[in-house]
Amino acid sequence: MVHDTIAAISTAVGEGGIAIIRVSGPDAIEGTARIFRSRTDLRDAATHTVHYGHIIDPKSGEQVEEVIVTVMRGPRSFTAEDVVEINAHGGVVAVKKVLDQVLLQEGMRIAEPGEFTKRAFLNGRIDLMQAEAVIDLIRSKSDRAFSVARKQAEGTLSKRIKALRQTVIELLAHIEVNIDYPEHDVEDLTSAYIREQSGSALEEIGKLLKTANEGKILREGIMTAIVGRPNVGKSSLLNMLAQENKAIVTDIPGTTRDVIEEYVTLNNIPLRLLDTAGIRETSDVVERIGVERSHNALEEADLILFVLNNNEPMHEDDRTLLEKMKDRQLILIINKSDLESKLDMDEIEEHIDEERIVRMSVLEEDGLDRLEKAISKLFFEGQLDSGDLTYVSNVRHISLLKRAQQSLIDAIEASNIGIPIDLIQIDVRSAWESLGEILGDEVGDSLIDQIFSQFCLGK
Amino acid sequence: MVHDTIAAISTAVGEGGIAIIRVSGPDAIEGTARIFRSRTDLRDAATHTVHYGHIIDPKSGEQVEEVIVTVMRGPRSFTAEDVVEINAHGGVVAVKKVLDQVLLQEGMRIAEPGEFTKRAFLNGRIDLMQAEAVIDLIRSKSDRAFSVARKQAEGTLSKRIKALRQTVIELLAHIEVNIDYPEHDVEDLTSAYIREQSGSALEEIGKLLKTANEGKILREGIMTAIVGRPNVGKSSLLNMLAQENKAIVTDIPGTTRDVIEEYVTLNNIPLRLLDTAGIRETSDVVERIGVERSHNALEEADLILFVLNNNEPMHEDDRTLLEKMKDRQLILIINKSDLESKLDMDEIEEHIDEERIVRMSVLEEDGLDRLEKAISKLFFEGQLDSGDLTYVSNVRHISLLKRAQQSLIDAIEASNIGIPIDLIQIDVRSAWESLGEILGDEVGDSLIDQIFSQFCLGK
Repeated sequence: MVHDTIAAISTAVGEGGIAIIRVSGPDAIEGTARIFRSRTDLRDAATHTVHYGHIIDPKSGEQVEEVIVTVMRGPRSFTAEDVVEINAHGGVVAVKKVLDQVLLQEGMRIAEPGEFTKRAFLNGRIDLMQAEAVIDLIRSKSDRAFSVARKQAEGTLSKRIKALRQTVIELLAHIEVNIDYPEHDVEDLTSAYIREQSGSALEEIGKLLKTANEGKILREGIMTAIVGRPNVGKSSLLNMLAQENKAIVTDIPGTTRDVIEEYVTLNNIPLRLLDTAGIRETSDVVERIGVERSHNALEEADLILFVLNNNEPMHEDDRTLLEKMKDRQLILIINKSDLESKLDMDEIEEHIDEERIVRMSVLEEDGLDRLEKAISKLFFEGQLDSGDLTYVSNVRHISLLKRAQQSLIDAIEASNIGIPIDLIQIDVRSAWESLGEILGDEVGDSLIDQIFSQFCLGK
Repeated sequence: MVHDTIAAISTAVGEGGIAIIRVSGPDAIEGTARIFRSRTDLRDAATHTVHYGHIIDPKSGEQVEEVIVTVMRGPRSFTAEDVVEINAHGGVVAVKKVLDQVLLQEGMRIAEPGEFTKRAFLNGRIDLMQAEAVIDLIRSKSDRAFSVARKQAEGTLSKRIKALRQTVIELLAHIEVNIDYPEHDVEDLTSAYIREQSGSALEEIGKLLKTANEGKILREGIMTAIVGRPNVGKSSLLNMLAQENKAIVTDIPGTTRDVIEEYVTLNNIPLRLLDTAGIRETSDVVERIGVERSHNALEEADLILFVLNNNEPMHEDDRTLLEKMKDRQLILIINKSDLESKLDMDEIEEHIDEERIVRMSVLEEDGLDRLEKAISKLFFEGQLDSGDLTYVSNVRHISLLKRAQQSLIDAIEASNIGIPIDLIQIDVRSAWESLGEILGDEVGDSLIDQIFSQFCLGK
């Protein structure tokens, strides 16, 4: 496949010591060589070597920037094409100057978001599942989410999907032989074989889907709403969680505040708190919920942290809300546990299991460990520390796996009630295609464009 | 000089395709080799080569991250020591994981802000003036500020300071010979020589200091205040300026809003607008100023943009303010020039030169070019487009140059009135030392620490 040559700033923008422009395509080396003055000519440079020199404005002959240039010849590069990386001084101006005033004048085009990774996929270096994991790597907000994405990026999950596909294609081949040569009359054998192969594929799909819920949570965070009547300590809890998180995130200067507000990581559990404004509103919301109807934000939440004040008897609103939420993933936080209890615990335990009740004193910063355990129990069956990091986490993959699952179930059922195998073949082929779509086989351009457009610039 | 081995994240933090950890020091290669699994052993790697592989947790043996490692052996490196750069996936988690969980466990220490550049200086690869320019490079907000900093970083200005120092040391040597061997009796010759050498040095210092004002402005931006009575169009002007700037800065995703709010670049002129909140306040301020006293923000400003409404007669407050500001660098903007003029221009021109009056229609986005020309005339004598980019821009350098200037003037005057040359020698030596301090010769540790602590992490 022949592409044009693309260039983009590949490091995050902001104050930093180094910034990188990545160039990829057939003209990457020649095009950079034309504007690079150094002891060595890049055209003659061996792959995986680094060269000190200056970027020159081809019109004026003036030096634009002092740089270090890395040459990686395809296919041993990120995109599998010839790649040049230009390391310039950090900050905004240096790289923008080199990119706009020089590279783009040399016939290169600015890369679209995700276009480098897209090329790695289109050039067959990685499959679509691996490519999608690259964006998860960059976006990951916790160690564990990162490790899960890294496994996927390295192809651990792809291997299992490929093995699954192998099982299905063997079944499909068998069925097609049977259709093409009906004289062989192996009807019964095929029926048993369909059940056996489909059953084995279904078992594997079941295992994968079992990881999906946790995987999705690790990837996206548990959408969490904090609710409760005014002055029970919602804001303080939020601050306490945010503070915990600061220790993890903000010792790196320059991290944007958005990140901190949206995500907190409670030990290894990523919580995606419904935005502060939303939470501050919930005092009203709760009261309204008591009498009126439930709220969108609450409807969306995976987890509801319902805060009560230990030092105050239950209010009628609390009862209404508790009743309303009884089928949801809810943890009841009894705050101000350092004060005298005025709550009727017998009444509370009628509504909610003991293991979902967490006593805390946000003021004394006590109980965060218990909260973490309760959440872990609710979402990870307490098993968060298990070593296996192979999770299905991407919604697209999950829905395609479910589609394949349904197709195979249909095939078995059809076979059981004696439906002709040329109809069963349609189901099996559909399962094969769904699995293929996960890896990026036979997917349309528009889907590919859509997937890569979610990337950041320069990747 | 022997240092320990330091490591830090050297790219800006945020979403990006690539993030880099830089490692420098005697154990950089060996230390990284211990935790890097690849086809080649880093210990045997040639300088300026790039290696694909994995960072391994030495305790668990598990892969932590897929990386590309660059080896640059000293002295051919940024710090002049052995340097390893580890390119990992962008985002926050990957690099932080590699840095915290692995490198720091291998006996490396996290680098202080500016410590890599400090080492380049301490190891003699660059002088202090060049090192200081590195931070200006990263912080620069306009093309021109960047180019000025680049010239300094490459040593253009250092060369001129060194030449100056040479002139002064020749003079000093001459004087000292005369002191040590008074029998030579070259008193008159020395006096003439002092005038000649000092005069030539003073001429060069004068040339350099002449660039200082523009240099400082290019580096830091013109501190600009927008003032005027309510509803003359101050906020609209601010937005118009910010919009111009957006075209330059915000097509790069991730640029923080702080930068946009503080700096706007009007063609090549960097304006540092007193913060929006401040400007929004000025409606009150101006009224207060009219009757009371001037305001701190206005006192600090290098440039005052005073906005009048073309469609409204001058107000008594306007007259008071204009009188108050008559000795300041002020440009009078007559906004709403598309509407009928109700201003008495004869009266205005009594207060202010015509060339400082700019007619604009912010609504119709008309007049920005005229504003730019007027500012350029005020601060750069209209010469902004001259090709020479050798400016003295750093306040520390400017004050040391002024000190050297004064010492040489003192020496000439002392010589003129027949003061003994062993006293004159003190002045000349002082000039020599001041110039040396610019380059970092004979400066104390505490000054060096202070200079480098202004750097960002990882540089």
